[in-house]
Amino acid sequence: MSGRYVVGIDAGGSKTHALIADLEGRVVGGGESGPGNWEGVGLDGAFDAYARAIDAALRMAGINRTDICAAGYALAGLDWESDVARLESVIRRLDLPGPYTLVNDAFGALRAGSTDGCGVAVIAGTGSTVAGRNRRGATFRTFGLGMHWGDFHGAAGLVWEATRAIGHAWIGRGPATALSDAFVRAYGAVDVPDLVERVSRGAAPPPNGRLARLVFTVADAGDEVACRIVRQAGEELGLTAAAVVRKLALEHESFDLVLAGGVFRARNRLLIGALTEQVRRCAPMARVVRLEAPPVAGSLLLAFDAAGVPTPPALCVRLLAEAHHWFQTIGGME
Amino acid sequence: MSGRYVVGIDAGGSKTHALIADLEGRVVGGGESGPGNWEGVGLDGAFDAYARAIDAALRMAGINRTDICAAGYALAGLDWESDVARLESVIRRLDLPGPYTLVNDAFGALRAGSTDGCGVAVIAGTGSTVAGRNRRGATFRTFGLGMHWGDFHGAAGLVWEATRAIGHAWIGRGPATALSDAFVRAYGAVDVPDLVERVSRGAAPPPNGRLARLVFTVADAGDEVACRIVRQAGEELGLTAAAVVRKLALEHESFDLVLAGGVFRARNRLLIGALTEQVRRCAPMARVVRLEAPPVAGSLLLAFDAAGVPTPPALCVRLLAEAHHWFQTIGGME
Repeated sequence: MSGRYVVGIDAGGSKTHALIADLEGRVVGGGESGPGNWEGVGLDGAFDAYARAIDAALRMAGINRTDICAAGYALAGLDWESDVARLESVIRRLDLPGPYTLVNDAFGALRAGSTDGCGVAVIAGTGSTVAGRNRRGATFRTFGLGMHWGDFHGAAGLVWEATRAIGHAWIGRGPATALSDAFVRAYGAVDVPDLVERVSRGAAPPPNGRLARLVFTVADAGDEVACRIVRQAGEELGLTAAAVVRKLALEHESFDLVLAGGVFRARNRLLIGALTEQVRRCAPMARVVRLEAPPVAGSLLLAFDAAGVPTPPALCVRLLAEAHHWFQTIGGME
Repeated sequence: MSGRYVVGIDAGGSKTHALIADLEGRVVGGGESGPGNWEGVGLDGAFDAYARAIDAALRMAGINRTDICAAGYALAGLDWESDVARLESVIRRLDLPGPYTLVNDAFGALRAGSTDGCGVAVIAGTGSTVAGRNRRGATFRTFGLGMHWGDFHGAAGLVWEATRAIGHAWIGRGPATALSDAFVRAYGAVDVPDLVERVSRGAAPPPNGRLARLVFTVADAGDEVACRIVRQAGEELGLTAAAVVRKLALEHESFDLVLAGGVFRARNRLLIGALTEQVRRCAPMARVVRLEAPPVAGSLLLAFDAAGVPTPPALCVRLLAEAHHWFQTIGGME
């Protein structure tokens, strides 16, 4: 092993991150580029996104490709068996030396958030995915394709439930809710029909995941309908996580239940409480961990795994803290 | 009143129908053209669709524009107050003599299916809308914009619940269901992941409302998950209909609950039973009527209303039967 650095790449639908660390877990450079999911930007587009993020990280670290000894790729769009060869061909073009690990990005979050790379990760951004790995190395992942094939879809799902509740209140089918006023105000509309007319006629954008924050705010203020929506979202995510727990026979083990993605950034207790309750019903020893570090930290740890370099707790703590710091400061200033 | 004929126009998202009857309720001609919802085809496109259907109906009837004494327009896309002037300008260009009635197409179905033009119509095609009118002339209508603002969305909703159940069975979150095999076979796929991969990668079309028939079939064969989905769809539609009943203070009246649209063509007892139960809870005297005639028959009756010509039961029965027959035979041969 000639190089003394590892690189981690996390590619998502809107951004691609690369981070470089030395073998003691010190982060020495990072880079960011645009969308890196090949399903959206094509294989050449994915290559460009990976390459640009890596080159920026190398520049910041002041090192060359030959200083790299291993890489970890956590890639959105690596969904099916047939995608492995497809994405391996992209990775070969990057021309980084050494062994690598290649996984779906959900497993990057699991590696970053769990102490031993095992457990279950619930990733809830605009959509959601639940992924798990047990100590025998078996893995399982939900489709993560929105609500169509069984996943409750994260922030978008919360907002969809909110608009449904606003509609039901207007029809007189459900109770009045402060969500109506909150959404009307957020859109600068006059009333609910005005809001719906604007959205349905394309004069205003359809409610999207960004409004999930509003649902949490209205719930926090005590609105019963909003509270029910948040609680149900937690239950939905928890029921799916519990199913993954059972798939991997983790019921009687102690493991990390990693919560990752923007939806958990609100630290909503109702959401996390309902989620945890569902998982603990079948796995009482699950430890809830909120992933503070960026998922690309998991890609770095996967690079250590590929290199066969152990990642003792002290190294992990340092690496996660530095990766977090990097994104809060240097990464944010780019 | 110089003319001795009335014309009804029903414009939807995929087709526009025109039907002409004499003042005794005999159907003498009809015409069909393409999409007539101005939201999709623009105001000029809507004009063309209306005009082509009307001209075809006039030709078949062997009469001229001047033989018409009144018209009834039931138009999809007439959703908001601001649409009235918009669509009146289109209607003026059609240059048909006499008075007219102009309503959202949901009210055309209500007029066709109810004995006195009052009651509640549940229209469930790909999406769904519930519309009602009481004997004081007050009306109410749900947004009919899919599931986003409170409507359960008809056939598309049934299929969405089915794919969600298939996903849950695959994750191990919900019970196994015969829907999985039925959908896999319908797509010519190998198994559920193969099906999901094909759909998610655009190699096969996403499940749409046409597959609702499959959900009914699997439910009829006794599959519990499919039965639950069908029952819930009926409850959803029934709860919304009950809300419209309350909005119009119809609880203690006898009225027609009109079921219209493709979803009811399957005459699924579980669906209709669950729907009826919800409505009868608040309105015990509701009479369930399945609309067999095409909705454009309602537009014809609205034309009689506009002309001030009474529509006694015998006339309605004849007109609905002839309109139905027209669509089954002559209309179908075009």
